[in-house]
Amino acid sequence: MSDEPVPIIGGTGALGFGVALRLARAGTPVVIGSRDAGRAAESAAKLTEQLPDANVTGLENSEAAVQGPVVLLCVPFRNQSENLTNLKGALRPGQILVDATVPLAAAVSGRATRLLGVPQGSAGLQAAEMVPDGVDVVSALHTVSAATLGDLDHVLDEDILVAGDSVEAKKRVAQLIARIDGLRPVNAGRLEASKLIEGLTPLLIGINSRYKTHAGIRITGLQEELW
Amino acid sequence: MSDEPVPIIGGTGALGFGVALRLARAGTPVVIGSRDAGRAAESAAKLTEQLPDANVTGLENSEAAVQGPVVLLCVPFRNQSENLTNLKGALRPGQILVDATVPLAAAVSGRATRLLGVPQGSAGLQAAEMVPDGVDVVSALHTVSAATLGDLDHVLDEDILVAGDSVEAKKRVAQLIARIDGLRPVNAGRLEASKLIEGLTPLLIGINSRYKTHAGIRITGLQEELW
Repeated sequence: MSDEPVPIIGGTGALGFGVALRLARAGTPVVIGSRDAGRAAESAAKLTEQLPDANVTGLENSEAAVQGPVVLLCVPFRNQSENLTNLKGALRPGQILVDATVPLAAAVSGRATRLLGVPQGSAGLQAAEMVPDGVDVVSALHTVSAATLGDLDHVLDEDILVAGDSVEAKKRVAQLIARIDGLRPVNAGRLEASKLIEGLTPLLIGINSRYKTHAGIRITGLQEELW
Repeated sequence: MSDEPVPIIGGTGALGFGVALRLARAGTPVVIGSRDAGRAAESAAKLTEQLPDANVTGLENSEAAVQGPVVLLCVPFRNQSENLTNLKGALRPGQILVDATVPLAAAVSGRATRLLGVPQGSAGLQAAEMVPDGVDVVSALHTVSAATLGDLDHVLDEDILVAGDSVEAKKRVAQLIARIDGLRPVNAGRLEASKLIEGLTPLLIGINSRYKTHAGIRITGLQEELW
């Protein structure tokens, strides 16, 4: 997997771009996806300005999605369902979709410190319902701040909770996340745990606003070898 | 507050006893409450065996509840409502009830890695609905393991998320928690955040079973002074 490009749907947004930047710095080829191919190309150019050696391209989302086996979905919850509908013709069995979506009440003009109830139970479970057969959904990247990811001078030192029903798929995603210095992937169980994990984001958003910071989380008491 | 006793409803259980032990070691008088006065007295004796200088007594829950201004509720969710009903005649305006209850599905013979839906939104919000007028509810102590609390040789190094609608009450609870070496209280916002915080317990229970540990959580990116 090491040299396979990582498509990032919604890669022009703050979280997607931050992840793209960090993966690119780790030497991983990335494909920034956007609804608009022009905006994707602009973001790719912006990334190259910061990291001249980066292997990065910008493509329309459904063209991006076919470029690698592990596809990151970094879009606001408001657009998650629409994006997954648009990706139905692009995603292929054997691919992994990493869902980073959080159903913040902000999606319906409510507060970002509150979680919406999602009919399937969570954004991750909604993604699992919508992907084509044979695509594994892994839920991850909910607690790392887009702002700190996007600032390469910021030293990361935090955990990423990874949930999914396929152990193999979770391991591949964990390996990908572990390429980013300072991020430690932790196995958080089956995909239904995304219900609990997605709740961390509004909690951290509240803490960020109270303490004027970009908080993350760390699980204490874990051994060195986690996968 | 420093010398006022801390009543612990359900103090004979693993979490309540662990908190009693740690507070007692910090020099705080504790009152272990139980439905059964005899069992409360036994637990107090057990605590004194471990810490001969401890200031600890054991009383029936409603007698315990009147012994100090900050009352900890450390009972399983299955018994939370019954306990709060029994405390209605004991709790007085101006007291603070610290709710550590987590609505695990285990309460209804389901899995401890799943959260029940609570009509009020969370166990903390149910507590707020049930306490007498003038009693402030603060939600805390959901993520620290009863096993590590109860093992005084174990060095704690983790955070406690504290949520509540009264800033004053939250501060008092934070001061109490901070007396325990290795626990750092973090302001997690209004009481409704207990919905999100309570979800951390089933998540950690899953992590504990997967990694054979007693995990806790830590918020990264915070400054030194939090209150």
